[in-house]
Amino acid sequence: MTELQEPLNQLTAAEVAEGIAGGAFTAEAVTAACLERIAARDGTVHAWAHLDAEAALAQARARDAGTPLGPLHGVPVGIKDVFDTCDAPTGMGSPIYAGYRPFADAFVVATLRAAGVVILGKTVTAEFAGLHPGATANPHDPARTPGGSSSGSAAAVADFMVPAALGTQTGGSVLRPASFCGVVGFKPSFAAISRAGLKLAAETLDTVGVMARSVEDAALLAGVLTGAAPRALEEPARPPAIGFCRTVLWERAEAETRTALEEARAGLTEAGAKVAEVEMPADFLAVDRARNVINAVERARTLAFEWARHREEISARLAETVREGLRTPHRDYVRALETCREVRARLDEVFGGNEALLVPCVPGAAPLGLESTGEPALQGFWTALHVPTITLPTHRTAEGLPVGIQLVGRPRADDGLLAAAHWMMARLGEGRR
Amino acid sequence: MTELQEPLNQLTAAEVAEGIAGGAFTAEAVTAACLERIAARDGTVHAWAHLDAEAALAQARARDAGTPLGPLHGVPVGIKDVFDTCDAPTGMGSPIYAGYRPFADAFVVATLRAAGVVILGKTVTAEFAGLHPGATANPHDPARTPGGSSSGSAAAVADFMVPAALGTQTGGSVLRPASFCGVVGFKPSFAAISRAGLKLAAETLDTVGVMARSVEDAALLAGVLTGAAPRALEEPARPPAIGFCRTVLWERAEAETRTALEEARAGLTEAGAKVAEVEMPADFLAVDRARNVINAVERARTLAFEWARHREEISARLAETVREGLRTPHRDYVRALETCREVRARLDEVFGGNEALLVPCVPGAAPLGLESTGEPALQGFWTALHVPTITLPTHRTAEGLPVGIQLVGRPRADDGLLAAAHWMMARLGEGRR
Repeated sequence: MTELQEPLNQLTAAEVAEGIAGGAFTAEAVTAACLERIAARDGTVHAWAHLDAEAALAQARARDAGTPLGPLHGVPVGIKDVFDTCDAPTGMGSPIYAGYRPFADAFVVATLRAAGVVILGKTVTAEFAGLHPGATANPHDPARTPGGSSSGSAAAVADFMVPAALGTQTGGSVLRPASFCGVVGFKPSFAAISRAGLKLAAETLDTVGVMARSVEDAALLAGVLTGAAPRALEEPARPPAIGFCRTVLWERAEAETRTALEEARAGLTEAGAKVAEVEMPADFLAVDRARNVINAVERARTLAFEWARHREEISARLAETVREGLRTPHRDYVRALETCREVRARLDEVFGGNEALLVPCVPGAAPLGLESTGEPALQGFWTALHVPTITLPTHRTAEGLPVGIQLVGRPRADDGLLAAAHWMMARLGEGRR
Repeated sequence: MTELQEPLNQLTAAEVAEGIAGGAFTAEAVTAACLERIAARDGTVHAWAHLDAEAALAQARARDAGTPLGPLHGVPVGIKDVFDTCDAPTGMGSPIYAGYRPFADAFVVATLRAAGVVILGKTVTAEFAGLHPGATANPHDPARTPGGSSSGSAAAVADFMVPAALGTQTGGSVLRPASFCGVVGFKPSFAAISRAGLKLAAETLDTVGVMARSVEDAALLAGVLTGAAPRALEEPARPPAIGFCRTVLWERAEAETRTALEEARAGLTEAGAKVAEVEMPADFLAVDRARNVINAVERARTLAFEWARHREEISARLAETVREGLRTPHRDYVRALETCREVRARLDEVFGGNEALLVPCVPGAAPLGLESTGEPALQGFWTALHVPTITLPTHRTAEGLPVGIQLVGRPRADDGLLAAAHWMMARLGEGRR
């Protein structure tokens, strides 16, 4: 049984599930603690697009009254407001969808419910999971962006409003906000989690991901959502072999990120991991441009209806992306897809014998201002390659701002990546507060 | 200008577009002719799930009054009832969605509208694009299945109710009904056409396809929907090199299909094509089983909400597939995906130097009875491999029933496949009526 040394809203998802299963506390008490935190803080953080406290408490009471449904029984979860929910509006971060009530739950929502969660509410998303931000502020400094597009999910988890939340990543929409807010953000392999009931942003890039305050929680939710049985992360028999890779985008990494990576390398080496410096072929840089081409063309497609009927309600920033997509020649799009396929087939050139790559995640700490969610290139590069990737909150700046590092797994080796990340977090710990 | 030797509802989409552009007739007249045909015949064929004659005529009049929007200006099109439409119900072939009104148009609907089409109505689909049929009958013999799941689209095009219609293929849902109904059915490469706004059936298989009465029309619609500029199909400089391939599923091809293929081979050879017999490695058979595993697991995912909340309204047949998916171990699913990836990488072993493969499409003519839509294995094999594939109505049985042949293209070589198919249709012609 969990020792109650922390307020209930500060527990991890695994601790909540264990505590409820063991009778240490109720789902209602946990949900109430989360709601209390939200009431105290959301006037500053603005993480929630839709919240119905009574409905959340009713779900929690039903969990308390019922037999255990699954491994997340009674755990409150936040849902990015681009996933359909049958009992709550789904606003997509766009005035076009204000008050929109879907008929059905998205796959991820129905599946989390079947595993026992309490859907706490919908978290703020940038407009259509793009770059035009919502109202969310960074909980570490409300003058700074939380990152995006899964802004509310990252901020809510970081601010102890909810133990875990769902995001989506088309460029860097899971890992960037997680890194800026100081939580774990995991993007599984492309297509590992079904997107049924998700408003698509760019179809060959969109990947469902999770935010949590531990690698264990990220693995727990991902296990439920991918259909792999959720299981405890095993301590590997030997320390993982890690490739330290500056990537072809190193010039975008600022001093804070370079320091975070060097610290991580030193800590890992000290802990006994084999950390080898690996080079990325210079021509892999084509992926960065290719992702932008694919993103623009596919966003113009997924927004075909909104562009035709509600153009005046699309932000100037997104409208520019749509226009860019519409004027891109088809052959350039085809070539961009081909570029990504070619580089995917050559990833062994970078991985070598290593199980994961340690790479920059963000340029640095969250920038000041809420008008931009920051630079997505360092995360988007890997999204376009469809590999699993995770950010870990191992570093803080002198001012106490989180700067995440990124660990990238081999194609479809999600379990290996999570095991390596778990091993690393246990050694490196969270950045000092 | 088109010579008016046929009633307007019998023209191809290209002929309709040309006639309207040239002032030979109006969009309203074409739409009225289609509606008249439907009024006369749909009591027998039951191709339409939703039809609003006044709304269709209003669209047509708007096209006649407005400036030309695109290459399909004024052309009536049928939409399989699994694509969202903002101005018509979308029933998914399921009582769960009876009267369901989506907020937005699917990508394909918005894009066809932008190209100038008249959305004539929604065509009958098997339940959630699966195997449980709707009411549609085969226009060549109402006692026989039209095939499925794009039943209404194939029957409507075959019966001259509309020149072209959209389908989706997860197993064989475009090519099988097209083959049974005697029309052209084209499934582009996987992901070539955006699925935004489509109710997913099995996410790594679902492919949007088109039905028409000519290869030219299939290419025209696909060109609009893929974003490749629609262009006239060029006569190739030399006859295409075709591989005649019995495949590993030859035992499922009955006498009628074997005859259809032999006739096609003889006709092609006579026309000057190089037709070489090619073998498929026996271990490719694993794809057939793998597709079934993927299909069951992914259908259980896309129907997670309906399974949780509306189970009693799911057909016994589909419920069995969902149960199969739910009890399939995750490792079997992962292995099935891997099998398909491996075979995709080995397709050169079958194609050799050939541009396309001539393969069986269906066991034979449409079976008697409306309770089954027929056998999907011969089409589903190629869907799982993500290659472009097309059926051509080159053969009729002694009773006058269509039996299509199938032509399969190299990965992502959709244009090459369409050119080869166009060349073939010009030489082989339609099966005798």
